[in-house]
Amino acid sequence: MTETSNRMWGGRFAAGPDAIMEAINASIGFDQRLAREDIEGSRAHAAMLAATGIISGSDADAIREGLLTVLSEIEGGDFPFSAALEDIHMNVEARLRDLIGEPAGRLHTARSRNDQVALDFRMWVRAQCDALDEALVALLRALLAQAEAGTDWVMPGFTHLQTAQPVTWGHHMLAYVEMFARDRARFADARKRMNLSPLGAAALAGTSFPIDRQMTAEALGFDGPSANSLDAVADRDFALEFLAAASITAMHLSRFAEELVIWSSAQFRFVTLSDRFSTGSSIMPQKKNPDAAELIRAKIGRILGANIALMTVMKGLPLTYSKDMQEDKEPVFDAADALMLALAAMTGMVGDMTANQGALRAAAASGFSTATDLADWLVRVLGLPFREAHHITGRLVALAEAKGCDLPDLTLEQMKSIHDGITESVYDVLTVEASVASRTSYGGTAPVRVREQIARWKEQLA
Amino acid sequence: MTETSNRMWGGRFAAGPDAIMEAINASIGFDQRLAREDIEGSRAHAAMLAATGIISGSDADAIREGLLTVLSEIEGGDFPFSAALEDIHMNVEARLRDLIGEPAGRLHTARSRNDQVALDFRMWVRAQCDALDEALVALLRALLAQAEAGTDWVMPGFTHLQTAQPVTWGHHMLAYVEMFARDRARFADARKRMNLSPLGAAALAGTSFPIDRQMTAEALGFDGPSANSLDAVADRDFALEFLAAASITAMHLSRFAEELVIWSSAQFRFVTLSDRFSTGSSIMPQKKNPDAAELIRAKIGRILGANIALMTVMKGLPLTYSKDMQEDKEPVFDAADALMLALAAMTGMVGDMTANQGALRAAAASGFSTATDLADWLVRVLGLPFREAHHITGRLVALAEAKGCDLPDLTLEQMKSIHDGITESVYDVLTVEASVASRTSYGGTAPVRVREQIARWKEQLA
Amino acid sequence: MTETSNRMWGGRFAAGPDAIMEAINASIGFDQRLAREDIEGSRAHAAMLAATGIISGSDADAIREGLLTVLSEIEGGDFPFSAALEDIHMNVEARLRDLIGEPAGRLHTARSRNDQVALDFRMWVRAQCDALDEALVALLRALLAQAEAGTDWVMPGFTHLQTAQPVTWGHHMLAYVEMFARDRARFADARKRMNLSPLGAAALAGTSFPIDRQMTAEALGFDGPSANSLDAVADRDFALEFLAAASITAMHLSRFAEELVIWSSAQFRFVTLSDRFSTGSSIMPQKKNPDAAELIRAKIGRILGANIALMTVMKGLPLTYSKDMQEDKEPVFDAADALMLALAAMTGMVGDMTANQGALRAAAASGFSTATDLADWLVRVLGLPFREAHHITGRLVALAEAKGCDLPDLTLEQMKSIHDGITESVYDVLTVEASVASRTSYGGTAPVRVREQIARWKEQLA
Amino acid sequence: MTETSNRMWGGRFAAGPDAIMEAINASIGFDQRLAREDIEGSRAHAAMLAATGIISGSDADAIREGLLTVLSEIEGGDFPFSAALEDIHMNVEARLRDLIGEPAGRLHTARSRNDQVALDFRMWVRAQCDALDEALVALLRALLAQAEAGTDWVMPGFTHLQTAQPVTWGHHMLAYVEMFARDRARFADARKRMNLSPLGAAALAGTSFPIDRQMTAEALGFDGPSANSLDAVADRDFALEFLAAASITAMHLSRFAEELVIWSSAQFRFVTLSDRFSTGSSIMPQKKNPDAAELIRAKIGRILGANIALMTVMKGLPLTYSKDMQEDKEPVFDAADALMLALAAMTGMVGDMTANQGALRAAAASGFSTATDLADWLVRVLGLPFREAHHITGRLVALAEAKGCDLPDLTLEQMKSIHDGITESVYDVLTVEASVASRTSYGGTAPVRVREQIARWKEQLA
Repeated sequence: MTETSNRMWGGRFAAGPDAIMEAINASIGFDQRLAREDIEGSRAHAAMLAATGIISGSDADAIREGLLTVLSEIEGGDFPFSAALEDIHMNVEARLRDLIGEPAGRLHTARSRNDQVALDFRMWVRAQCDALDEALVALLRALLAQAEAGTDWVMPGFTHLQTAQPVTWGHHMLAYVEMFARDRARFADARKRMNLSPLGAAALAGTSFPIDRQMTAEALGFDGPSANSLDAVADRDFALEFLAAASITAMHLSRFAEELVIWSSAQFRFVTLSDRFSTGSSIMPQKKNPDAAELIRAKIGRILGANIALMTVMKGLPLTYSKDMQEDKEPVFDAADALMLALAAMTGMVGDMTANQGALRAAAASGFSTATDLADWLVRVLGLPFREAHHITGRLVALAEAKGCDLPDLTLEQMKSIHDGITESVYDVLTVEASVASRTSYGGTAPVRVREQIARWKEQLA
Repeated sequence: MTETSNRMWGGRFAAGPDAIMEAINASIGFDQRLAREDIEGSRAHAAMLAATGIISGSDADAIREGLLTVLSEIEGGDFPFSAALEDIHMNVEARLRDLIGEPAGRLHTARSRNDQVALDFRMWVRAQCDALDEALVALLRALLAQAEAGTDWVMPGFTHLQTAQPVTWGHHMLAYVEMFARDRARFADARKRMNLSPLGAAALAGTSFPIDRQMTAEALGFDGPSANSLDAVADRDFALEFLAAASITAMHLSRFAEELVIWSSAQFRFVTLSDRFSTGSSIMPQKKNPDAAELIRAKIGRILGANIALMTVMKGLPLTYSKDMQEDKEPVFDAADALMLALAAMTGMVGDMTANQGALRAAAASGFSTATDLADWLVRVLGLPFREAHHITGRLVALAEAKGCDLPDLTLEQMKSIHDGITESVYDVLTVEASVASRTSYGGTAPVRVREQIARWKEQLA
Repeated sequence: MTETSNRMWGGRFAAGPDAIMEAINASIGFDQRLAREDIEGSRAHAAMLAATGIISGSDADAIREGLLTVLSEIEGGDFPFSAALEDIHMNVEARLRDLIGEPAGRLHTARSRNDQVALDFRMWVRAQCDALDEALVALLRALLAQAEAGTDWVMPGFTHLQTAQPVTWGHHMLAYVEMFARDRARFADARKRMNLSPLGAAALAGTSFPIDRQMTAEALGFDGPSANSLDAVADRDFALEFLAAASITAMHLSRFAEELVIWSSAQFRFVTLSDRFSTGSSIMPQKKNPDAAELIRAKIGRILGANIALMTVMKGLPLTYSKDMQEDKEPVFDAADALMLALAAMTGMVGDMTANQGALRAAAASGFSTATDLADWLVRVLGLPFREAHHITGRLVALAEAKGCDLPDLTLEQMKSIHDGITESVYDVLTVEASVASRTSYGGTAPVRVREQIARWKEQLA
Repeated sequence: MTETSNRMWGGRFAAGPDAIMEAINASIGFDQRLAREDIEGSRAHAAMLAATGIISGSDADAIREGLLTVLSEIEGGDFPFSAALEDIHMNVEARLRDLIGEPAGRLHTARSRNDQVALDFRMWVRAQCDALDEALVALLRALLAQAEAGTDWVMPGFTHLQTAQPVTWGHHMLAYVEMFARDRARFADARKRMNLSPLGAAALAGTSFPIDRQMTAEALGFDGPSANSLDAVADRDFALEFLAAASITAMHLSRFAEELVIWSSAQFRFVTLSDRFSTGSSIMPQKKNPDAAELIRAKIGRILGANIALMTVMKGLPLTYSKDMQEDKEPVFDAADALMLALAAMTGMVGDMTANQGALRAAAASGFSTATDLADWLVRVLGLPFREAHHITGRLVALAEAKGCDLPDLTLEQMKSIHDGITESVYDVLTVEASVASRTSYGGTAPVRVREQIARWKEQLA
């Protein structure tokens, strides 16, 4: 480098254009993570090439054996990845040539890096769908365990972070079961849709070799080969749909994590998180920072960011492969890792946390939280129109507030002063326990309903 | 307002706090769009209340009849929406009370605005899934018509916007058929997942009235009632999944639109767009700006923006309903409209556009685009390893380039000077027609394969 | 429309391609909002054309007068906007022709719609910067009023939503003053950067007419003309930078709104929001939903969404103008409106809200919140290393916890049992009042410091 | 781990909760990148503690010396980072204790990790602003070199990717100079705004030690200390504003990169990229894939994604520090690296690329690109109203098109057949050279104007 060019490039890229091009162009720094998929795909491809007579059986055997060696070298951790060889595909093939010589040169017959990388990445994302499904199941189990423990513990049901009606702890846990179960379904749908093999699309047009795409598709666990070779190498929908599903899951986690942070505050004290998932202060031993909950809450940032990143990359790209698409992997890797970690941490926290039943019940019972029960009683028993019943209830609450007491503490006399038809039986609906027990509509918070749902979910997860 | 407060509020909100609160709080400006769903839901609810004996049959009849009147007033366009009544639900109910009096007050029994809005919005989004499915089918048909017209027209297959291999026009159109068909599947999955009725979740806890949620679910076309009342009112997954699917569809449109813009340039001239979907210049009559294509390309912006908007709103919201969630509708309305319009415009453009076969073939034949065919021939016929065949082909291309001719113009002698084993039959693979005809692997660009795919799709869309 | 085409288009676009193209192409539905800027720009242009002799003075007069008439018609609300005339520019010019005839045809000399729309939109965004600055000042004033009222009210300073150290209400309010003041600075910088006039860039290349761009720039309040005509029509940085600044402001609002929602909960009760900015429940009169705070918290969604939307549109657009850029206005309009409304609502809420001093102080005093004061005393007075002081403090807190008392309730004896050197004077730092009074470092929470900051800000806003 | 817990955690986190918490909680994996800033900040803090008498001069000397040793160990690459010590701050302090013993425990006096990390990260981002400014200057120089080389080369000026008017190469290059110069200004504004030192805010409330925040601020190159301790530890505006500026820069890069990809196509051939920044095909030696341009185009994805990520994290966080904010660093690191690399690659490409003057001129001259020149001539010379002149020009272009010739090829006779007043002098404006030369308005494409702008920029960058 001359002085001039040094000035041009500045410190960080003093080495000049070649170093810059290598830095921006090489993907081996991150796509080595696809090594297992790359080798699995190549082994299936070699077997098919032999089965269709495109290469000899002995060449295929040498290739397949050699690839296993490469894989064990990589997994052993001392494979010398080379940036000059740019990507995982070339790194593997070059090493294969070292190991087995000339037959290595036959492996890439009827294939291109375009369908190869589409295959590898698709298999990796598919495996993440499976891993996340397992992680979601673990979380569902942890939630069900909480729901079962506290099926009828009473807690406040909030709207606007204001107590609205009493609900049960079990019911609240099941709300998240619904959410994370939908997440599973989204990953399952994405997995199903992505499960077509691009291998054999070659560069983009297909190939004139008599390949058997069905055979490689089956060997690699696909439902079949993809139906259009241009689409096969140009498509990244599978990654985008994965990121979309991951973003929604992360949003669910952020909501639960927010609740846990609020519930852990000195003002709420609804739950106590275990020491494992919170950090203390060396100086204030009673202080417990809900670090894991906060970090989980934050993970939506990078996952949604990854979603935007790849969507932005794909916007407006003409067919078929453009180098822009090399930017597809890192956001997906990062999002998958983040989601997996966040699910594991949430599962751990949920498993370990302790609900403070006393605080929950006390909060549920404050704020005239059974007012709607009273109104419903007026409709149901006295036959008042809903809107009128509401009006009367409002006056009763005001009366209780004025007296400084709660609704069940009003005397029947006092009640009758507002509406003459009220009878003794109204007191049956004014406790929080009565309130939750009465909400027996399908999906309601009544313990009887919650128990049914727990049973349904346990069966489903069995 | 005093002068002081005027200074506080500045010009735009000179009216002071009450005007501001109404402006930020009222949703009737946009949620009137849910009028049809709101009334349909209320009619089903009233019928169920009567069937279960919660209200009388005559009250239900009056309500159901009255609601039809309200609907016809709204659809007639002269319903006086009131911001003071805040939202569509209160506007409809208030008008119903005008029309039928006291029974109107019984409609809201065993229901809350929380489950009501969740129902209305869900039904609206579900209807959009259906409408978009239709729009996607129309686009698929237009693409198939193009594919059928030009099954074997030869055009360049690009990578990096550089000619890589010849492909067929039909094959290229089918690549988009694959994409938009996946989009249909995503909307279908989303629709299936969202098709549970929240009605009866009431405020959040369910209700003590003996409602029949199965009955309303069926009446409104749902697969059943949702299983957790907290989730039912807190969930906006259906909207987010809709937006995620819409974003991917918009991305596909942006890619095709980008191609049409580039293909319409004076330099490419691959297609001629119809006057209907392009705009001229008053001064340069030959100029045709691909306005529709550009606008379609841009629509991903607002659709992805809507996706981010709602995801950001939902991030970290504790259960159940928070007023933040009122921000859910406008982005979805806007994204659905934008996508529908973009699909319609794309369908129109595809239907009207004319491929310039001559320009396509000429571009396909330039740049030694059959080099890989030559290499494959060397492997297939001479049995060379793939990597060696590539090396020899590179030398043959270099020779042709030096001679200023194309590959088929090299004499056999010249060919043999590079590799002695080459025979006359090599010329069979060097034309673009031979090249595309040879790519007969499943999903390949050979007209025979393309025709099979067209047949498959036509059957599927029949 | 034939039946076939009807089937093609589906219900919504039954009118066929022409209706679709008009729907996607026309911008008059939203760009009529630029009417004032469009007319102001045209009047300046006409004056300049006359001053430079390009058109006659009498033509210019007629044009300028006619444009005022058009403006008053538009502002009067009965201007018949026409979608066939596509945009605000053509609508205005067509009406001008009706009014003044032939001279109207001279207005567009040395101008193009490309520089015209760039001008109009830039002026609109610039005006928003000014309006938002005013709105931010109003909010700063409201915050300062709160800070002044409660300069020394003690409240908990939170980390992780856990009490960490006592702070003052005034100090907390000033934290937001810092944030919103930075927001003002960002809008100011953006305004300064955008304040160059694109008028005279014409279609893209400049013009051969002897125009005076400096003159129109000055007339329209710009710092000068933009220096490159291609950039002038292709640039939308001003809108993007505006959206970026708006997003950060919205983020600040979301943080404060979150605090207000949490502080309004029954569990915290740190503040009481006024009835104007919260909504009650007809049935639970004591319940106050912090609706305005929640809606403010949510506004970041659409503002950030708008930012992404326009960024996505601009990604990868070749120079200069592409029709994609017509998608620039709606997100900016929506984001500006949303931010203005959110700021006004926050200003109103802050002005009206009441801090519950008792609850704040009680929360501040709980949880051994002066533990760090104790540790600092050990370092300062006894000269212990910081890390050792922390260790001893932890033991003292544990002792207090075991005794079921607070730190100031430990006897000197008890204190000495942990560290012999502790003296009577330690009690001077253990109350929350002493704690906040002691934090006198610059920017610290001590009332003396807070008062200085309030004074500084009041002077700055005077 | 029991079998049950193994089943709970699944493969990846078989080690159980402790491993999960460490994985999600520890930041040393990425924040070690702040080592230099951390040590620089600690050294300044120690010097200040001694100057104010809070610690002894000899302790400060030992600390400052020891920190230099730690830094050299880290920069030497063999510092044993420990995940158990969580973050860079604790890793450094622990090592310092090993090296110097007890005085290390005094370093953290009057400081907290909250202000420490705010300081470190702010200094890191500030350094990136400087580095990016240098990188932008390098790119501006490369663009100016191109502009100077081709000040008067004629090329098409595009709208809608359709030739609109001829412009000059120099002018086109200068359009990007304007953009990247605005980017510099944005980073400069961001840098100025962030340049306040949070050090001394301590945990959140300030401190009771008599620290001198002005002194540390000066020592670390800040304009002063920040004015509110709560804001100081809760604020991440500096990172968000950095990301916003980076996103706009990345958008500019994406536009230029898109042009380079299109210009490199066989159909355009406007430029030839050097071998250094494109990759070939082993088999098609003439093929040049614009890899670097494509990768640059794609970088906006991750940068915008990072912007969204951090904005989403910060949404709705109550004051002051929450652990969520630990997610601030990785997106900023990644975005800064990506932008730096993209700028370097673009600078290299621009420096190396060759404009194909012949192709550019030919494209500029096609498509009646001087039609507006003709229209302007009609206005200027014959005094026709603009709209009428346009109409006549349209008819002349139609005539030329019908004759199969270009505008300058029409005879005067033919011209007069459309408008009688046309004279010989019209031919002076019909060549592309005449066209560009005539656009002499300020900021116009005329070489005389372009030269002035080049001179202005060279002076500014000198």
